[in-house]
Amino acid sequence: MSELRVAVLGVGLMGADHVARIDRKIKGARVAVVNDFVAEKAEQIAAGIDGCRAIGDPLDAIADPEVDAVVLATPGPTHEKQLLACLEHGKPVLCEKPLTTDVTTSLEIVKREAELGRRLIQVGFMRRFDNEYAALKAAIAAGDLGTPLVMHCAHRNPAVPHGFDSSMVVRDSLVHEVDVTRFIFDDEITSIQIVKPAANPAAPEGLADPQIAILRTASGKHVDVELFVTTGVAYEVRTEVVGEKGSAMIGLDVNLVRKSAPGTWGGQITPGFRERFGQAYDTEVQRWVDAVTAGVTGGNSAANFVDGPTAWDGYAAAAVCEAGVQSLHSGLPVEVEMVDRASIKGA
Amino acid sequence: MSELRVAVLGVGLMGADHVARIDRKIKGARVAVVNDFVAEKAEQIAAGIDGCRAIGDPLDAIADPEVDAVVLATPGPTHEKQLLACLEHGKPVLCEKPLTTDVTTSLEIVKREAELGRRLIQVGFMRRFDNEYAALKAAIAAGDLGTPLVMHCAHRNPAVPHGFDSSMVVRDSLVHEVDVTRFIFDDEITSIQIVKPAANPAAPEGLADPQIAILRTASGKHVDVELFVTTGVAYEVRTEVVGEKGSAMIGLDVNLVRKSAPGTWGGQITPGFRERFGQAYDTEVQRWVDAVTAGVTGGNSAANFVDGPTAWDGYAAAAVCEAGVQSLHSGLPVEVEMVDRASIKGA
Amino acid sequence: MSELRVAVLGVGLMGADHVARIDRKIKGARVAVVNDFVAEKAEQIAAGIDGCRAIGDPLDAIADPEVDAVVLATPGPTHEKQLLACLEHGKPVLCEKPLTTDVTTSLEIVKREAELGRRLIQVGFMRRFDNEYAALKAAIAAGDLGTPLVMHCAHRNPAVPHGFDSSMVVRDSLVHEVDVTRFIFDDEITSIQIVKPAANPAAPEGLADPQIAILRTASGKHVDVELFVTTGVAYEVRTEVVGEKGSAMIGLDVNLVRKSAPGTWGGQITPGFRERFGQAYDTEVQRWVDAVTAGVTGGNSAANFVDGPTAWDGYAAAAVCEAGVQSLHSGLPVEVEMVDRASIKGA
Amino acid sequence: MSELRVAVLGVGLMGADHVARIDRKIKGARVAVVNDFVAEKAEQIAAGIDGCRAIGDPLDAIADPEVDAVVLATPGPTHEKQLLACLEHGKPVLCEKPLTTDVTTSLEIVKREAELGRRLIQVGFMRRFDNEYAALKAAIAAGDLGTPLVMHCAHRNPAVPHGFDSSMVVRDSLVHEVDVTRFIFDDEITSIQIVKPAANPAAPEGLADPQIAILRTASGKHVDVELFVTTGVAYEVRTEVVGEKGSAMIGLDVNLVRKSAPGTWGGQITPGFRERFGQAYDTEVQRWVDAVTAGVTGGNSAANFVDGPTAWDGYAAAAVCEAGVQSLHSGLPVEVEMVDRASIKGA
Repeated sequence: MSELRVAVLGVGLMGADHVARIDRKIKGARVAVVNDFVAEKAEQIAAGIDGCRAIGDPLDAIADPEVDAVVLATPGPTHEKQLLACLEHGKPVLCEKPLTTDVTTSLEIVKREAELGRRLIQVGFMRRFDNEYAALKAAIAAGDLGTPLVMHCAHRNPAVPHGFDSSMVVRDSLVHEVDVTRFIFDDEITSIQIVKPAANPAAPEGLADPQIAILRTASGKHVDVELFVTTGVAYEVRTEVVGEKGSAMIGLDVNLVRKSAPGTWGGQITPGFRERFGQAYDTEVQRWVDAVTAGVTGGNSAANFVDGPTAWDGYAAAAVCEAGVQSLHSGLPVEVEMVDRASIKGA
Repeated sequence: MSELRVAVLGVGLMGADHVARIDRKIKGARVAVVNDFVAEKAEQIAAGIDGCRAIGDPLDAIADPEVDAVVLATPGPTHEKQLLACLEHGKPVLCEKPLTTDVTTSLEIVKREAELGRRLIQVGFMRRFDNEYAALKAAIAAGDLGTPLVMHCAHRNPAVPHGFDSSMVVRDSLVHEVDVTRFIFDDEITSIQIVKPAANPAAPEGLADPQIAILRTASGKHVDVELFVTTGVAYEVRTEVVGEKGSAMIGLDVNLVRKSAPGTWGGQITPGFRERFGQAYDTEVQRWVDAVTAGVTGGNSAANFVDGPTAWDGYAAAAVCEAGVQSLHSGLPVEVEMVDRASIKGA
Repeated sequence: MSELRVAVLGVGLMGADHVARIDRKIKGARVAVVNDFVAEKAEQIAAGIDGCRAIGDPLDAIADPEVDAVVLATPGPTHEKQLLACLEHGKPVLCEKPLTTDVTTSLEIVKREAELGRRLIQVGFMRRFDNEYAALKAAIAAGDLGTPLVMHCAHRNPAVPHGFDSSMVVRDSLVHEVDVTRFIFDDEITSIQIVKPAANPAAPEGLADPQIAILRTASGKHVDVELFVTTGVAYEVRTEVVGEKGSAMIGLDVNLVRKSAPGTWGGQITPGFRERFGQAYDTEVQRWVDAVTAGVTGGNSAANFVDGPTAWDGYAAAAVCEAGVQSLHSGLPVEVEMVDRASIKGA
Repeated sequence: MSELRVAVLGVGLMGADHVARIDRKIKGARVAVVNDFVAEKAEQIAAGIDGCRAIGDPLDAIADPEVDAVVLATPGPTHEKQLLACLEHGKPVLCEKPLTTDVTTSLEIVKREAELGRRLIQVGFMRRFDNEYAALKAAIAAGDLGTPLVMHCAHRNPAVPHGFDSSMVVRDSLVHEVDVTRFIFDDEITSIQIVKPAANPAAPEGLADPQIAILRTASGKHVDVELFVTTGVAYEVRTEVVGEKGSAMIGLDVNLVRKSAPGTWGGQITPGFRERFGQAYDTEVQRWVDAVTAGVTGGNSAANFVDGPTAWDGYAAAAVCEAGVQSLHSGLPVEVEMVDRASIKGA
């Protein structure tokens, strides 16, 4: 068949990465349409790609008959309307996190997709496609660790953009470990507590950083996460699962090891998410394109057009982060409120 | 001068190690007296060492005029009386943890020693003498990490003796990280919370294992400790301090690294505390003997006869563990109650 | 433009990997033709790929007007004739090592291509596209190590096919480090010595394994290579460069690290070349396709259709291995004989 | 019994370390006599130690009736005469390497001691007492690696004293790996080749540095050693043994691991031999004192007064280094000439 025609909505940092990825690396897809709030940016990108058009209205881009599938890299507050449009037009969509910005609308999206009877929405939790996380999950599945009991995570950024506030540490950073927890343990998170140590003197005034998140799952597994977004060092993501028969750690980031004057050994840490998770993004998008293509080719209206985290995963993450923001204020454990998944047929 | 004549009280696991250490490795000291609840055991050991006597009553051993200093490796409930005897006779004493089994008597010991006007009691928190902990403290002191903010600890044992219960995880295992926290940060612990994940299926019925301890210091530093005493793996003690300018980790336990069929690389983990902390015990006892000898030689009644953690450190650890056991029941953060150190002149 | 139509000649282990790679991963190319000595194998593969034909004669496949470029994964003895056909028809070709099976014919190929005035031949030394080797070369280029002086290599296979003999250790295994040496140091190899330790008892009768190769470059750099092809362990490729200002090592193969009963830590080593160098092969082929496409699109008869090691690199490797096989017999250093590159205009 | 009275001859860098070690750490021995070519230095040291005398003539010190055993840390050219005096007076002696400065006199010492019928001479190859080398030897002895086949060594110093010449790289540095080879493999070295790469631009004029030594043992094992004494980095000693069933590496020097801005991870390398081999020296001397004391106490004229490398080990090292210096000039393999050990009764 011919290549999948993809519309990329939002060509900021993440969207522009997706455009370049699909244009140069992803087999079986091409960037057919780009859209951005800043029309000139979209037009400039479209001009550099054979057969690519800029479309000024995101809903027009979604509706365009020569668009087979959509990548959503627009700001979170616009997701709800755009996702509903994708569902309406039956267009498979890879939606960067968050699904939507609140629990209510996320649940609404889940329900609307469930009514359609086929999965069109995949959420961009790319760590599920990282080779190391995959190896960790495989080790657990193989029984190497026995029953998993505890997970320790560190999530460190060298710096954050101006205006990044304490709740964004939960919603934008911790959300990844929320999904990792659900992915690695196949278990829902039932409570969350945010501990705020004395703040890093180098953090901006008013930003509670570092934060320690303490999660508990339905089956009683414990997860702790050090969130530290003003380290000044590098992008560090480390995860250790401790089980009945042993433990396993990923994120050691060992590559070229140097010895240098005066008497040191060591290496470089990945500076940012692109270097750390570039492979994961590539795999995520290739597998999504393959899944969408298989679904389209199959011509099966009941087909799934996703190969990864679903709208429900986006809703669950929203529910946990909502509770996390509450705990950020109280410092106490907060129960996570979620609807019963079985109550939504097809979710 | 002639060698320091040491009485070792209690020759179980730990006491027998101290006897062998002083007999074969420690410069400037010899085992002059041994004592144990099981008299035959003491006599058998005494018979194997030149010039060593077994004395049946621990208080007689302490009072013996041919004993210069005492190592206390007896069960915790006997410590109070024995420590008071050491103070009464002016005998320097290296007391294995705990100082005493409760906060009240620990504080009483602190006060009695303070009244004497010289330090005779050193508590056996041997990790302070471990080369790696010393390097960690030195890195912080050198400002390498900037302001320290967070510490993550893992403390894992392959197995525990029959009868080891949930509160012993706090009192016997966590107590080491309690002291490490106070040592590394030079800060008192003000609150403690114990989280109990679903228990290891391989743990004995009724033992809450693993446990996660969450400590907070007076200056707001956060410490979390994974306590897991039925891992079946090995003796693992790992500590990471995260600061304003970087982080540092010890306990990686990398020595001989092997590659073996079928396609694995790696090494051995120290099986027990002797292998992991043998160097620390040797250093602890040598430095204690040197300090006691220097004090004795100086003939100075105001001298200190310790080079390490003091009775106050033993009291502080008891106070934190007491609060920890309370939290073990409630799962909630508990404030640590301690007297003001300045209120006890000389403590 | 439309996709590059590639003919893959030889669909054994390596050729079949290339077919799958181009079919599923490589952007901008498709497998248009497959060919193999075993016609059924080619036909079976062709049947599974849209728009792919099997052609029985390799020279017909090369000449086919609907083939834009060729991947040569046929046995070495057929390379000479097939490469000459590629040159004759002006078809860019990615030739798996060796270029040809002897120095004389390799040199002939170099000359014939040079007469054409454009580069059509790329040799499949894929390590040049491995991220770790690239990082090593970049560290040297950045001056991190000062003047490089020495390189230590280990090249270990768990096992070799039946019939693998002592000279194949040189020609098939060492050839990679020969190219790595030339790539990392940008320097020709001037002498080679093969040391034969007492053989591995587990090696097949008559196979000299392990072997130690000692190389010297024109500027006096020393390289030693442990070649050990019957380790029974895994596929291990380690490289360390030691320079005036420090050293750097790659190939540590650290990913998920486990701790397991009874008291071990460590991880898995890549079992074979596919796992170790999968990324390198993908990058090699993508960059070759991009380079060929750029050359074709440019419609420039003087263009280069390679982005990687050239025919000269294939010739140089052949010359070093030839001397290596001589040293295998004598045990003494053997000078490498090569023509002066400047004597061949355009080489 | 009372403490062993030790005379330390030569109180330069190494001798002064031994004095401090015996004075402060070694159980069962004390420094009774010190001697040095610079009399004031000896007197100054003696003045600081209870019951220690300075004696101006080394032979008087050896003969002194209140000296039980001797540590020889004098310059190599004086060893022959001093060792003969020790043999004459029946004094156990721990002799820093080299045994003597040439093969002939080393052999003479071996014969003279053999005639005595008891071992009095231990040579200071301290690496045999290093915990990591001991673990490597134990892993081999346990059969973990199957038949050992190859050993790779790196021996790097940050700098060397003024006047250090190319042959001293062999005699003073390589000599340690010569003994390590014999110790790890329990095998004699039969040939040696020294390869001289282009010299480090930072090395002093005329010093061949780095050098690569290639050793072969009687049973055909291969050993290569990178000797590099002007690295400017640190003191690095790494050893890897490759065997039939796997490989094992020591010297990784991993302790506290830091992560720092801007994006690096790693640690410190031991700066010098004291830090790297301090534990080995302590163990060496303690075990020597214990062995001498056991021999003396036993009052057995046929007793051995050593627990470590013997005069024969010193002779063998001298023979290999002699051949190494020849190869340094020719660049070719040189056969090692040694007498048949069985021809010397008691050697």
